[in-house]
Amino acid sequence: MPFETVSEFRVRYAETDQMGVVYHANYLVWCEIGRTDFIRTAGRSYAELEREGVLLAVTEAQLRFRASARYDDLVRVRTSIESVGSRGMTFRYRIERVADAVVLVTASTSLVSLRPDGRPTALPAPLREWLEAHGTA
Amino acid sequence: MPFETVSEFRVRYAETDQMGVVYHANYLVWCEIGRTDFIRTAGRSYAELEREGVLLAVTEAQLRFRASARYDDLVRVRTSIESVGSRGMTFRYRIERVADAVVLVTASTSLVSLRPDGRPTALPAPLREWLEAHGTA
Amino acid sequence: MPFETVSEFRVRYAETDQMGVVYHANYLVWCEIGRTDFIRTAGRSYAELEREGVLLAVTEAQLRFRASARYDDLVRVRTSIESVGSRGMTFRYRIERVADAVVLVTASTSLVSLRPDGRPTALPAPLREWLEAHGTA
Amino acid sequence: MPFETVSEFRVRYAETDQMGVVYHANYLVWCEIGRTDFIRTAGRSYAELEREGVLLAVTEAQLRFRASARYDDLVRVRTSIESVGSRGMTFRYRIERVADAVVLVTASTSLVSLRPDGRPTALPAPLREWLEAHGTA
Repeated sequence: MPFETVSEFRVRYAETDQMGVVYHANYLVWCEIGRTDFIRTAGRSYAELEREGVLLAVTEAQLRFRASARYDDLVRVRTSIESVGSRGMTFRYRIERVADAVVLVTASTSLVSLRPDGRPTALPAPLREWLEAHGTA
Repeated sequence: MPFETVSEFRVRYAETDQMGVVYHANYLVWCEIGRTDFIRTAGRSYAELEREGVLLAVTEAQLRFRASARYDDLVRVRTSIESVGSRGMTFRYRIERVADAVVLVTASTSLVSLRPDGRPTALPAPLREWLEAHGTA
Repeated sequence: MPFETVSEFRVRYAETDQMGVVYHANYLVWCEIGRTDFIRTAGRSYAELEREGVLLAVTEAQLRFRASARYDDLVRVRTSIESVGSRGMTFRYRIERVADAVVLVTASTSLVSLRPDGRPTALPAPLREWLEAHGTA
Repeated sequence: MPFETVSEFRVRYAETDQMGVVYHANYLVWCEIGRTDFIRTAGRSYAELEREGVLLAVTEAQLRFRASARYDDLVRVRTSIESVGSRGMTFRYRIERVADAVVLVTASTSLVSLRPDGRPTALPAPLREWLEAHGTA
């Protein structure tokens, strides 16, 4: 079993659209909640990482929408790490409705490590090692 | 007649909610579009102002929701200035549906001028003078 | 002491803006989280209420921004009811940073009870009675 | 040259995040603006399509983030159609900064045609024929 973190929250009214379901772009926001919790588990928050001058910018995203979440649904984001490099990583997400464990969305995002001036930089070694030790491979 | 600027755009699908109309918090975003256009008319963009180290932070907002905008409606924000002080100002907004000129929302927001470290600072004199000359009083 | 509900959650990256703090319109979304939790305490969820054909639409909002929330801050919304009428109610909110209990925003919103066709309708009697019994007056 | 529509608008303050650039999920919203304009060019608005009982739901999305848009930038979405089937289609997007034509994001989204009850349904024949006639193949 790969290591994963689990984030749970309720769907907000603001996240619905006139189709009566969650507007699709919000799932990318939920993926970000998932990886924030994943990185926090590594022992430092992403907020701390930014204060130390390491930004993580999304370079690629792929989403597959399988079923719809609705207002007030309790949802769960399962986050795991797919690959780690010297300057970035790829996360995987499985977003489920808690009530029946139906998979709503599967997704992956690749991120690159940047300095505040926008230039690529190496991931801090402790974070990289932790991510490698908790990858799915 | 008070001086006002007019901003027009179409309602985005992302801005609707499951009630089938625009989610109410988005009108605050539209007010910001209105005052961005208003300040641009003063001869410098708000983006330039920020690069010069003057931030405008919202301190108060009041909104009255009268009718609902729907997806793909063309809407218009009429922005005027209600009062100007040494360190801030109050804007007024009237948001209308273009098709029938129905008033959707009336609102006002007060803003304070801040330095990047968060401390209040005087508005640049040319901006303040322009705002005073274009106020409603 | 008035009855109040408390909702807690962390600030999302998506909720920040380039000023480095939470974008002001998001506090209206947080107020909605607060009143969703408040109504749930009354014994039925707002989602159920909508399925029964009672919509609550915001007619007025007032916000006072006192301090800024930042990414990853744990925040808390204290929600109470200010007044209840036959066809609507006014909620009050106090939004605080959990770490130091600093008040970030105080706000109130008035809502009207609507049928799906948009016409005003009476609040369900049990909900109205519960709200009256838990008001601040 | 494939047929494409061009949508232009300015970056909103609300769309930035604390990295000082546009938050990545907003590009999915901009893609939706692009395909709304594309479908409007087919002679009927997407809003009309929904009123006739045909919803288009996103089933897949792929985004590649190449450069960052900033507040107040004028941006442009170039939208074209990659493929059309009996019950859906795939759109392609190229999002550029207008000032220097730098490509910010390339993306594609696949959509399926649904009835209001959520079941797949055929695209209206005139729309399908128009899309096929304006595809890139």
